[in-house]
Amino acid sequence: MATEQVKVNWLENMAFEAEVNGHKIIIDAAEPVGGENRGPRPKPMMLLALAGCTGMDVVSILKKMRVEVESYSVWVEGDLTEEHPKQFHQMRIIHEFKGKDLPMDKLEKAVNLSEERYCGVSAMYRKVIGITTEIKIIE
Amino acid sequence: MATEQVKVNWLENMAFEAEVNGHKIIIDAAEPVGGENRGPRPKPMMLLALAGCTGMDVVSILKKMRVEVESYSVWVEGDLTEEHPKQFHQMRIIHEFKGKDLPMDKLEKAVNLSEERYCGVSAMYRKVIGITTEIKIIE
Repeated sequence: MATEQVKVNWLENMAFEAEVNGHKIIIDAAEPVGGENRGPRPKPMMLLALAGCTGMDVVSILKKMRVEVESYSVWVEGDLTEEHPKQFHQMRIIHEFKGKDLPMDKLEKAVNLSEERYCGVSAMYRKVIGITTEIKIIE
Repeated sequence: MATEQVKVNWLENMAFEAEVNGHKIIIDAAEPVGGENRGPRPKPMMLLALAGCTGMDVVSILKKMRVEVESYSVWVEGDLTEEHPKQFHQMRIIHEFKGKDLPMDKLEKAVNLSEERYCGVSAMYRKVIGITTEIKIIE
């Protein structure tokens, strides 16, 4: 059974230094809540996990399909509950592809394969929250 | 309603540059799956979100309790399913405090308050997976 691990070491105030796959990342709170904004907040890391997971799936599927894009970005937005503990209850993924004469059917197929078969982050989140997906093409 | 957002831009191969709260983070796959390990993998970011969220809660609660620790680290381990899409089905949080004559009852109270009342990452994950917690004190 595969196991993943991260460790965070407290630095001072609200700042922590994380080690993830051997790479260092500082996370910190914003100034109004006692931090110094030395790094991002922890909760958006949940959105980053989803954006990166589905993004990597899509680029590797498109490569197999021999679809070449000029550029590709993924936005993930998450809405938080009003009540505490504040948690995501809805997310939106927007895949934005730039390129000439891009085949929408293949882009859709790549995105759907990630969501239905490959992306383990999406699979876990979907058990508790709603996630919508949108594909945009920029010529 | 509060909304959080992240954006990842594809760089090349499996590497993406993310922007999270204005900070840049590179994420990448490992070499055996076509990446170059220019940054961490996306899935462990889910563990980082949990470690950072509960860690920040604990340091701010301990500050209010006037409990001073020499050092503090949080490990989060996650076990992945064998079947695809591989996803976390169990996590373990280990809070490790270093200091002289640390009051275990207050450390436990801080950790429990985070888990039961404050940490929105933990609250969401617990709806789908099991999470165990351990507190270690190093004199």
